[in-house]
Amino acid sequence: MKHLLDFSGWTRADAEQLFETARAMADVLRRPIKKVPTLQGRTVATVFFEPSTRTKTSFELAARRMSADVVSLVGGTSSLKKGESYKDTLLTLEAYAVDAFVIRADAAGVPHQAARWVKASVINAGDGRRAHPTQALLDAYTLLEALGDLVKKKIAIVGDIRHSRVARSNAELLGLLGAEVWTSGPPSLLPHYPFFGARVTPNLAEALKDADAVMALRIQKERLMSGRLPSEEEYRAGWQLTEERMRLAKPNAPLLHPGPMNRELELTSALAEGPRSLVLRQVQNGLAVRMAVLYHLLVGGKA
Amino acid sequence: MKHLLDFSGWTRADAEQLFETARAMADVLRRPIKKVPTLQGRTVATVFFEPSTRTKTSFELAARRMSADVVSLVGGTSSLKKGESYKDTLLTLEAYAVDAFVIRADAAGVPHQAARWVKASVINAGDGRRAHPTQALLDAYTLLEALGDLVKKKIAIVGDIRHSRVARSNAELLGLLGAEVWTSGPPSLLPHYPFFGARVTPNLAEALKDADAVMALRIQKERLMSGRLPSEEEYRAGWQLTEERMRLAKPNAPLLHPGPMNRELELTSALAEGPRSLVLRQVQNGLAVRMAVLYHLLVGGKA
Amino acid sequence: MKHLLDFSGWTRADAEQLFETARAMADVLRRPIKKVPTLQGRTVATVFFEPSTRTKTSFELAARRMSADVVSLVGGTSSLKKGESYKDTLLTLEAYAVDAFVIRADAAGVPHQAARWVKASVINAGDGRRAHPTQALLDAYTLLEALGDLVKKKIAIVGDIRHSRVARSNAELLGLLGAEVWTSGPPSLLPHYPFFGARVTPNLAEALKDADAVMALRIQKERLMSGRLPSEEEYRAGWQLTEERMRLAKPNAPLLHPGPMNRELELTSALAEGPRSLVLRQVQNGLAVRMAVLYHLLVGGKA
Repeated sequence: MKHLLDFSGWTRADAEQLFETARAMADVLRRPIKKVPTLQGRTVATVFFEPSTRTKTSFELAARRMSADVVSLVGGTSSLKKGESYKDTLLTLEAYAVDAFVIRADAAGVPHQAARWVKASVINAGDGRRAHPTQALLDAYTLLEALGDLVKKKIAIVGDIRHSRVARSNAELLGLLGAEVWTSGPPSLLPHYPFFGARVTPNLAEALKDADAVMALRIQKERLMSGRLPSEEEYRAGWQLTEERMRLAKPNAPLLHPGPMNRELELTSALAEGPRSLVLRQVQNGLAVRMAVLYHLLVGGKA
Repeated sequence: MKHLLDFSGWTRADAEQLFETARAMADVLRRPIKKVPTLQGRTVATVFFEPSTRTKTSFELAARRMSADVVSLVGGTSSLKKGESYKDTLLTLEAYAVDAFVIRADAAGVPHQAARWVKASVINAGDGRRAHPTQALLDAYTLLEALGDLVKKKIAIVGDIRHSRVARSNAELLGLLGAEVWTSGPPSLLPHYPFFGARVTPNLAEALKDADAVMALRIQKERLMSGRLPSEEEYRAGWQLTEERMRLAKPNAPLLHPGPMNRELELTSALAEGPRSLVLRQVQNGLAVRMAVLYHLLVGGKA
Repeated sequence: MKHLLDFSGWTRADAEQLFETARAMADVLRRPIKKVPTLQGRTVATVFFEPSTRTKTSFELAARRMSADVVSLVGGTSSLKKGESYKDTLLTLEAYAVDAFVIRADAAGVPHQAARWVKASVINAGDGRRAHPTQALLDAYTLLEALGDLVKKKIAIVGDIRHSRVARSNAELLGLLGAEVWTSGPPSLLPHYPFFGARVTPNLAEALKDADAVMALRIQKERLMSGRLPSEEEYRAGWQLTEERMRLAKPNAPLLHPGPMNRELELTSALAEGPRSLVLRQVQNGLAVRMAVLYHLLVGGKA
């Protein structure tokens, strides 16, 4: 594997091999000295044309726990403001002997373009509404930990499906792992196009019914306030996850959220902190999964 | 010691043990290779909900000189702007296996709250007007270096006492170490409440008289310009530290300032750079003291 | 060598010795593990009173590839906003046991002042219109790689000569190395004063004629839009480097640009990516040259 852009071309075995490496990395993170020399002398560049503290921190810490050097460039800082093109920015960074680029962009396709421009490995850390593969990998890894296996498991994804790269990458990967993915949200926030084999319904109860696990998505509040349906109140009335609604799912069905959460909007605070919540486990696993991705791209083979 | 939030519950012996460790750390900083492997594989998170380059740099360098990894989050960056709560921000960071949080906040009590939320150690790097314990520790360490002992020593603190967490933490700690603390400033900037046993007077001469050491505080210029008394001119006339006024104190009594200084406001430039000034020594000692704090919280016992 | 402020006092032998070290550093950068322990336990502070992602990244990576710790302060962050003087800022940083300062400032002379204030080494990373010695060193190193020797070689520098510290430092250093430097640009952007022995002409053809190498400078677009001559159109018409114009130079004469490029303004995109372009090689060499500078200042002698 040279790049991680999305899951096209991936087999279930590819994902499972990566999860095996992630489990080894999780062991490292449980040690008192949470550091391995694996990427000593290698350089990872995080290039965030769209800001994201959480994903950036997770990748940078993953790189540093493997002893790599990290260079970071945040969009809006000087070079980009000076009008330098994406291409020149990336080629310039590559000239510093960068081994892997972690790229976040508000425009879909930038990481794919980057993979054609640079010789280094490229990891898509989220591009527009298109894909966010490491988020989907850490979600699937967390679900596997909780459920053991995903074959024929019903996973409900709830929220703004249409604009969500997290929903898209999850639908793609969870499908690959044998799960039955259901998506639900207000009609104006549902996709108009086939969604990687996922079921699409505005009826939340239908999506939650007997679900093995539920994933809430982050709502961009800007979208709710723009005069279009739904308003925040309508969203809460129809799609907010509550303890009561979660009773439609299987007993103890776990609840995921990619964060940052809008408490009392996508889900109640009680749920967010309750026993079903795997939200912090996702963050924790994100580190192990991203270490595994860096390992597969820069070292290759099994850990 | 699990957290450093303020000095409640501290004994003089606690402070002295920490200073002993700080002296060992100062030795490390005098070597050509100013680095020890003590915190290799540990992670220190600096979380500054209120910006402060100086304190942040000092903590981060202290952590790195002990070979720790550093993660930093500055308020106003994306997660917080996205409306994530303090609690979710800290719990998310903790999921990255953070061993210690260094927290600065404009609201009093945030680090105390944090200590209830997270399992990691919490260091208060300044919360509102409440406390700034590492500043007080480095000030006391610097005074001990200069005066040998603080018992019955008269220490005058001059400036905006009422709004100053530095004044509060110093009054508390210096009192614990046996010093007689005097505070002085314009009446509108003096505390209305008991101040950890410190004397409070608007009469600068009374506070400086035979003082063993003098500490100027930083004045927030915004406060002087708000139409309330005093104006900058009045402040200078009544409370600016000058060479002449310093003659009221004991001969060669040292002068401290937590920085950054407003030269020609809190003190004259001549004093700031003169032989009494320990301002740069404070910065230097700050590094050793913060290394000692990290050592006591993360390793424990004596260095 | 204690500081690198400009090339006054430099001999050709000084430059050649530095290039020899840079060649050794370039070897390190070609290894899989691109890191040496040379500056373990040393601290390099990058202080950018004027922002510059590229130069800052290059210096910080150079320092880290030699295992130094890096502290960085960017103008506009809190201490400076709080009104602290340049001098107090630098002395405060130095109190953290900084071994070398890398200083960029929009006012000429700040690094020279700094060298009088601090005991540490100072590297000028660009001061106003005055000097940018590491850029000139990496340019000369890149030219030497391409041309073998610079004695009697004709080097044409094209663009806004008058306001360019890159042009000034290059004219000074290339002259020292025996090259014949020509500068060309719109009359309003040419210097009014002697330019380190370089020829000055508004006639681009005259400057390019039989040139051994050509260097385009970055144009500040603000300057072209201010109503003064030239406009962007006039600049393109008279001084944009194109494939056709480059035919005036020697066959295969290489083309340099300090970046970031304004494609289709200073030069055509085809040239920027064509076989003459050494733009990325300059970036790459910048790392090796800056490692060499840090080595000469902090370790001394030959690598």
